[in-house]
Amino acid sequence: MKQARLFTPGPTAVPPEVLETQSRPLLHHRTPEFKKAHLDVIEGLRYIMQTGNPVAVLTASGSGAMEAAVVNMTRPGEKIIVTELGKFSRRWRELGQAFGVEVVSVSAEWGTAVPPEKVQAAFAEHGDAVALFTTHSETSTGVLQDVESFARIAREHDALIAVDGITSIGAHDVRTDEWGLDALVGGSQKSVMIPPGLGYVALSPAAIAKIKKGRHAVHYFDLLAAVDKAESGDTPYTPAITLFLALQKALQMMRKEGLSNIVARHAANAAAVRAAVRAIGLQLFTRTPSNATTAVVAPDGRASDITRTMENGYGIKIAGGQDHLLGKIFRLGHLGYYTAEDMKTMITALEATLSDLKLADNCGVGVAALQESFAGGVAQ
Amino acid sequence: MKQARLFTPGPTAVPPEVLETQSRPLLHHRTPEFKKAHLDVIEGLRYIMQTGNPVAVLTASGSGAMEAAVVNMTRPGEKIIVTELGKFSRRWRELGQAFGVEVVSVSAEWGTAVPPEKVQAAFAEHGDAVALFTTHSETSTGVLQDVESFARIAREHDALIAVDGITSIGAHDVRTDEWGLDALVGGSQKSVMIPPGLGYVALSPAAIAKIKKGRHAVHYFDLLAAVDKAESGDTPYTPAITLFLALQKALQMMRKEGLSNIVARHAANAAAVRAAVRAIGLQLFTRTPSNATTAVVAPDGRASDITRTMENGYGIKIAGGQDHLLGKIFRLGHLGYYTAEDMKTMITALEATLSDLKLADNCGVGVAALQESFAGGVAQ
Repeated sequence: MKQARLFTPGPTAVPPEVLETQSRPLLHHRTPEFKKAHLDVIEGLRYIMQTGNPVAVLTASGSGAMEAAVVNMTRPGEKIIVTELGKFSRRWRELGQAFGVEVVSVSAEWGTAVPPEKVQAAFAEHGDAVALFTTHSETSTGVLQDVESFARIAREHDALIAVDGITSIGAHDVRTDEWGLDALVGGSQKSVMIPPGLGYVALSPAAIAKIKKGRHAVHYFDLLAAVDKAESGDTPYTPAITLFLALQKALQMMRKEGLSNIVARHAANAAAVRAAVRAIGLQLFTRTPSNATTAVVAPDGRASDITRTMENGYGIKIAGGQDHLLGKIFRLGHLGYYTAEDMKTMITALEATLSDLKLADNCGVGVAALQESFAGGVAQ
Repeated sequence: MKQARLFTPGPTAVPPEVLETQSRPLLHHRTPEFKKAHLDVIEGLRYIMQTGNPVAVLTASGSGAMEAAVVNMTRPGEKIIVTELGKFSRRWRELGQAFGVEVVSVSAEWGTAVPPEKVQAAFAEHGDAVALFTTHSETSTGVLQDVESFARIAREHDALIAVDGITSIGAHDVRTDEWGLDALVGGSQKSVMIPPGLGYVALSPAAIAKIKKGRHAVHYFDLLAAVDKAESGDTPYTPAITLFLALQKALQMMRKEGLSNIVARHAANAAAVRAAVRAIGLQLFTRTPSNATTAVVAPDGRASDITRTMENGYGIKIAGGQDHLLGKIFRLGHLGYYTAEDMKTMITALEATLSDLKLADNCGVGVAALQESFAGGVAQ
């Protein structure tokens, strides 16, 4: 017998209560029950995004929601600034370029965050940039960025800010309204603990005003139509009904746990995993880590052996590196439905794997460090 | 106690075997298991679409897949011909116009099909049209169109043909390769009996060649990237994993039943429902009916009362009319997972409803006509 378990930074584990909703007879979407679920979903998303802004929920992956933000919030030929520090933040540049937007890319080496001063300098040089498209938690490297500062800089330059919060929402304290984020993009297979297939975007009044002044040609990704229909729980096109019902349930669970508790749990799990990794003698890939995933430098460049052994030997699916980091790093996931006990499961499997591969021989020190970190007072 | 049952032309009922797949622990999409499921899905879709062409499966509703067909198969400023005979065929025009394509609309009164001669005449007048975007089964009116003739006409004028087969695939004999359909678009919550959230497009070599020569700006809806990745079971973006697994299961069931049996079952159910409707004394809305749904003229314009009483009194959810047909027609669904016994359930509820509303008082004649039709030799 082998149990397979997901410890990837998306898709993430789905709670049994949420899975149960998926096996019920299908509900039609033009019914009061579905409309109520949709409205519940919007209220729940507002809660975890800390916003009163309208939210559009799209039947598409997070990448589709990012595209929606770009094609709605810009016009062809306009200039935008993007921060580029990994595979997913690079997507903002690719999207801008694909749709004929002039893109100024402010980059940082993968594994590091873009310093706010570099964003400031880009705006100083490009006063005509209409928006900053940036990333809170860069999933490919496990790096967290200072979007609060980015938002202040964008505002000082009369530009909008759109943030990819796909792996930060529900793992970090994302203060959409307080920080002034004009668009915040999220996905479903992340902290909200449901299968992939939904993306969502919260839009500030300033974002909506800009969209109304002109945008790219849109139809399926028409965010104005989506937020307009959503007011009465409706959607412009047939929604992924079962995923909406999953999200309704998951967000009920999140409300019950409480956002500050959820964020503290993520912070505690992430801190404990980092402590364990260091205790084992491995090197963390970043000094500005996200609570979503811990990127670790693979000894002897053997990340692929490590991920394969974790999965085949112990049933623990973690993620490797992407693009030029393939083989060089591996990523331990703690985004979503994970407890301290889950972290012990993951770290003991990592210890056993390193021992199997003769890359370390100190089983137990990682778990001891985990325990100490959890006991040491990082609020759970 | 009340049992709620779906008899809408989408979403349609989901078989228990398919629902069961949705409550399993989530599988990661970058695994051999998921890739196999994806490849199985493509093979199954090819089977029901009768094509050897590559198929892109998109995490989006059928409307998203229609948009993908338009933005990939045309360039801004090119001219296309569309047939417009209801709410969903109108979408081809709306999509073309949204993306800056010149659209020649060949329309027919809602409830009727566009005659091939009108398409022929449009091509004669607009020799520069690069493609015909048309609809096999117009879901809003229950009308079936002669896309085989349309395809011949388009080919004679060196134009491509893209067909919305969302409610015809798996309900009719759709001979993609034999008829020469360059793009065939389908959706998930239809004959393939799974919840909404996936759309798919089969592309002919000629369609792919045209796309390679130039298209609109695309990213999420990049069909070339999708078919390219699909060759190895991969996707450009995170797919709706659970819906792919549902589709894998549903298509296995369809292969087991056999396409000709499936189409015959749909034809028999549709014919029996039409016979029942006539026997009750109601008027069919179209003379060229689809096997997906039977549109019926509501006596005294009381369609809303009928749909409401069917649902609230008997738990049977059918569809009303859309746009200017709201209140005027209702639509009885028989697309997907429905047997002769289900038709009896639907028709007895309709008879009871008409009696409740004093719109008819001949309970039993509809069911008798159903029985006679099923016994009368339309192959099951």
